[in-house]
Amino acid sequence: MSTLLERTIGSIGPLNEVAMRAARERQDQLTKPLGSLGRLEALSVQVAGITGKPRPKIIHKAVIVMAADHGVVRQGVSLYPQEVTAQMVRGFLAGHAGINVLARHVGARVTVVDMGVIGGFEPHPDLVCKMIDFGTKDMTEGPAMTRLQAVQAVESGIEVLEAERAKGLDLVGTGDMGIGNTTASSAITAAITGRPAREVTGRGTGLGDEQLARKVRLVEEALRRNAPDPSDALDVLSKVGGFEIGGLAGVILGAAAHRIPVVIDGFISGAAALIAFGLCPRSRDYMIAGHRSVEIGHRAIYEHIGLEPVLDLGLRLGEGTGGALAMSVVEASCKILDEMLTFAEAEVSEADKRAE
Amino acid sequence: MSTLLERTIGSIGPLNEVAMRAARERQDQLTKPLGSLGRLEALSVQVAGITGKPRPKIIHKAVIVMAADHGVVRQGVSLYPQEVTAQMVRGFLAGHAGINVLARHVGARVTVVDMGVIGGFEPHPDLVCKMIDFGTKDMTEGPAMTRLQAVQAVESGIEVLEAERAKGLDLVGTGDMGIGNTTASSAITAAITGRPAREVTGRGTGLGDEQLARKVRLVEEALRRNAPDPSDALDVLSKVGGFEIGGLAGVILGAAAHRIPVVIDGFISGAAALIAFGLCPRSRDYMIAGHRSVEIGHRAIYEHIGLEPVLDLGLRLGEGTGGALAMSVVEASCKILDEMLTFAEAEVSEADKRAE
Repeated sequence: MSTLLERTIGSIGPLNEVAMRAARERQDQLTKPLGSLGRLEALSVQVAGITGKPRPKIIHKAVIVMAADHGVVRQGVSLYPQEVTAQMVRGFLAGHAGINVLARHVGARVTVVDMGVIGGFEPHPDLVCKMIDFGTKDMTEGPAMTRLQAVQAVESGIEVLEAERAKGLDLVGTGDMGIGNTTASSAITAAITGRPAREVTGRGTGLGDEQLARKVRLVEEALRRNAPDPSDALDVLSKVGGFEIGGLAGVILGAAAHRIPVVIDGFISGAAALIAFGLCPRSRDYMIAGHRSVEIGHRAIYEHIGLEPVLDLGLRLGEGTGGALAMSVVEASCKILDEMLTFAEAEVSEADKRAE
Repeated sequence: MSTLLERTIGSIGPLNEVAMRAARERQDQLTKPLGSLGRLEALSVQVAGITGKPRPKIIHKAVIVMAADHGVVRQGVSLYPQEVTAQMVRGFLAGHAGINVLARHVGARVTVVDMGVIGGFEPHPDLVCKMIDFGTKDMTEGPAMTRLQAVQAVESGIEVLEAERAKGLDLVGTGDMGIGNTTASSAITAAITGRPAREVTGRGTGLGDEQLARKVRLVEEALRRNAPDPSDALDVLSKVGGFEIGGLAGVILGAAAHRIPVVIDGFISGAAALIAFGLCPRSRDYMIAGHRSVEIGHRAIYEHIGLEPVLDLGLRLGEGTGGALAMSVVEASCKILDEMLTFAEAEVSEADKRAE
């Protein structure tokens, strides 16, 4: 009998070409010059292909924010102490963090998932417990987690996606919280894209030059000690990853399996996308790159997967904030496709076809 | 006694430094790494400086879409016949054009202004008549309008802005409709920035190579015949402009005078921003460049004024569509400033200041 992960990957099919063609044809007939809504047109066609609907409607939206702690934090890779992970999760549940504000703005609910935060929480209607362990181990001294835990993290993400789907879900965004998780994300990015650590390691919450140099050395040390196999995404995840990163990879795969468009947020979500892409390259077709983060490794991720970000607003907060704003653009693209009239419907004269 | 235009320009003051400093200080204390919301932080500080409020709220939003016809259309500069201007205005009033869909999406009302559309309309609650003439004259044969009409167009825009303000207006977007108006906008851009016509003249609704070359020649001819004075924005507007472009310049100046942030849409709105900037350089501080259009002249406009677009989505529709999407980002930036809690308010540990 196959596992949840295997079944999920096995059920990720190609985009629906018929729906995409119908969406493309309608876009070309709407009362605007051909192609004049650029990326909005392309997004609507992608969502048509994902959902199989020629005129998809985005009603239910959720941002899934996954949180976990990281053993590597003991090496001093962040300006913030480890307890900030738990404190920020409490902020998400109280509704006053950045992601809450932006999710409210775009009409998305926020579901927070404890994938392994040290400290623990009281039960809360918006909080899902999928705790794998009390944070990862220090990856500079050995694997961050076992391979079994890596599978468990990804499968937990699939379960969370499926539970959200049961509530109604037309568009999902990824988000993260975890002090130390840019370090893990840099290690994953270096391992999978083959780039040197210094090219994909950034300042995270705001490191100075010396601290950045130290962070690069720690990423190099984690890669040297663990030698993750770039062709085996679960090996990379287990050796230099994080529980929230594995969980988000599961969210992405689950979304692809259930034909729900998934907006990838920043650098940590991008590392999760690398894991999902490694496990199933076809999952790429279901991803929408929400924005280009300031973190230098983000560009390498999108080049590797082959994605072009929707927004470029100089963000580097994570939590799903950039993705949330992009979700609104994706929704707008579907409304354009559905609510605008065609030249014929609106009785507007068409372009001189001879001239095109 | 001074004119409405003179009074308006005279009342455009500097940004409120006290409000900006308060907004900047609050941004720096919110529960996120310093500067991690990039452009969102900068936008909220600008809006604070514009409105004079340390925590501005965006409640009432409007997109003002100004429409007019262009005499130069008889030279064959568009794929679409002139009657499409009037047909599209009817579409705006019926609520099924691109700008209607996107304005609804971001919660903005649409006000349509007839600045000089050939054909005429029935009265409609969302339609304002400020008709200057039955379209401009053909600028390749002489001035597009008289200097008096240019002043009248700009002052009409100020009046429209003031009427919108009376309904409640915290954020305004500009939009345009006018077959042939990319040709006028290219001529304005060439005249004011000093760039050659070929560098600022694009394909508009989708011209082929030969048609583009012809359009460049027509822009060159209009500039040669009229010799607009680049230091006199009203001279440029009257000789190679359009009624809707003058009107939008008035909207921008009116917004600046009344301390309302104004989001500039695409190339035609950009040409209006050039006129407003020429009449009052300080109006720049009140402008937010909504997006980077595909039209090649748009970049030259923003370089000249000194603006950086918020979005880059490959749009070239006009109507205010890109600006509408950016209005939502501006609103989000103000919500971040107002609704997020500070580290102290949320009881979250702060960054290690020694390390910064």
